[in-house]
Amino acid sequence: MQLAMVQDRVMPLEQLDAAHLDRGLFFGDGVYEVMRSYNGRLFAFDDHMERFARSLKAIEITNVDLADIRHKVAECFEKAAIKPDARVYFHITRGSGSRSHAPGAEMKPNFFLTVQPLPDATSQKTNGIKVCTYPDQRWKRCDIKSLNLLPNVLATMHAKRKGCEEAILVDDSGCITEGSSSAFFGIVNGRLRTTPLGPNILPSVTRKYIFMCAEAIGLPIEERSLTPSEAKKAQELIMGVTTRDVVPIVEFDGVRIGEGKPGSWTRKLEKQFQTYV
Amino acid sequence: MQLAMVQDRVMPLEQLDAAHLDRGLFFGDGVYEVMRSYNGRLFAFDDHMERFARSLKAIEITNVDLADIRHKVAECFEKAAIKPDARVYFHITRGSGSRSHAPGAEMKPNFFLTVQPLPDATSQKTNGIKVCTYPDQRWKRCDIKSLNLLPNVLATMHAKRKGCEEAILVDDSGCITEGSSSAFFGIVNGRLRTTPLGPNILPSVTRKYIFMCAEAIGLPIEERSLTPSEAKKAQELIMGVTTRDVVPIVEFDGVRIGEGKPGSWTRKLEKQFQTYV
Repeated sequence: MQLAMVQDRVMPLEQLDAAHLDRGLFFGDGVYEVMRSYNGRLFAFDDHMERFARSLKAIEITNVDLADIRHKVAECFEKAAIKPDARVYFHITRGSGSRSHAPGAEMKPNFFLTVQPLPDATSQKTNGIKVCTYPDQRWKRCDIKSLNLLPNVLATMHAKRKGCEEAILVDDSGCITEGSSSAFFGIVNGRLRTTPLGPNILPSVTRKYIFMCAEAIGLPIEERSLTPSEAKKAQELIMGVTTRDVVPIVEFDGVRIGEGKPGSWTRKLEKQFQTYV
Repeated sequence: MQLAMVQDRVMPLEQLDAAHLDRGLFFGDGVYEVMRSYNGRLFAFDDHMERFARSLKAIEITNVDLADIRHKVAECFEKAAIKPDARVYFHITRGSGSRSHAPGAEMKPNFFLTVQPLPDATSQKTNGIKVCTYPDQRWKRCDIKSLNLLPNVLATMHAKRKGCEEAILVDDSGCITEGSSSAFFGIVNGRLRTTPLGPNILPSVTRKYIFMCAEAIGLPIEERSLTPSEAKKAQELIMGVTTRDVVPIVEFDGVRIGEGKPGSWTRKLEKQFQTYV
């Protein structure tokens, strides 16, 4: 008899809920997005849906009706009616089935979504955060927003243990790629420095808007990775993340950045960002 | 109101089954093992449990009673009573909870197991299989048997499209690491060649037993990675995997290996392997 066990409960395999046979669970065989609202309005919906479509295509999940997904996201967001700011998470996996690396021929993708209140980030945005470096141990396609996030989790656990809010990932060549769940920027010699887009970082939506902000306020952009030693000497450091947009970094690997409080370019970027939301 | 949506069904978040909030699903934050039985007896139980313990420790899941897991595996295997050969899969994830990279302080790990009949591999073992190369895009800790397997899935999908049974992964330096779900060996100049253990490959249990076989039959071992061009010129090629132990490879990237049928060393290794099971 084919058996399954979930926690302490033994059952015939056929009685198992399909959630337990999700390829998202067995393999991380799926992709996701996180969006947020400002004052009851979803921000950058198109950008997130475009990236989601790109991620699905990259892992060859082709049988998804994206208009239907868009409708579901909008519908749930409205129904939840969370004011002022909500966080919307959703993912699609290749489907459920008996565990085998090669997917079955007729898999039906699984959709999952949550809408929750956005955690308060006032203190982080007002006072800035501390970050520390961690080796970038991720796979070679970090441009795909996939469910394979164990290295990101391990990096975050390391950061929390160090009393930091975020881990900044450093690759084998000694260059910063990005944060474990954020984009990373420095103000160096009066320019906004950040890693160029490529397979080693996520094409961050927040990054795109921070670039728009920089152009609007006359801050030149330089797409070139920083090293940790450059970061320590930067005028300002910034974390960019959907749920909190522009977050000042005031300590990097134990070294105070600038005056140890959010810098003026960061404040200008943040202010400009609010004009888009 | 906090909402969730599963496929087409909208519900309050609180009504969601914990399976949907598993960190294994959100992050691949868990580790697994696959074991098999021969003629009603589990093979290499201790080896698999040791590796499982190592994987758990490596991702810092520390609150698991391994004696209890061992008991559960044995109990379910007995209860399923699948003869002659069964396949046992089990994983542990860090737990379920609201999605956040940093785990909650008091997470309770999730255990999941299935026992199923082992798929028949007679044809593969009798006639040998075809394999093709694929870039090794995995993370830097492939020695951990984690649920982050999307690159392995993509490699397998590529192989199947090419009419092959398995993808053989090649790293940036042009060296073969291992198969997408198997260990890889070549008989070169009368020696058994395979990748040395390290963070870039799984410490395969089958590999350990194939080494024992090699010693028993007087086949010298050389732990040095093969390149694809070396593999094409090898006397014999072998895939090692728990569910099928020793599998002859008769075609590599479209090139016939040896006589295009299972070689004599492979047969000897296979025969020797059966004495351990």
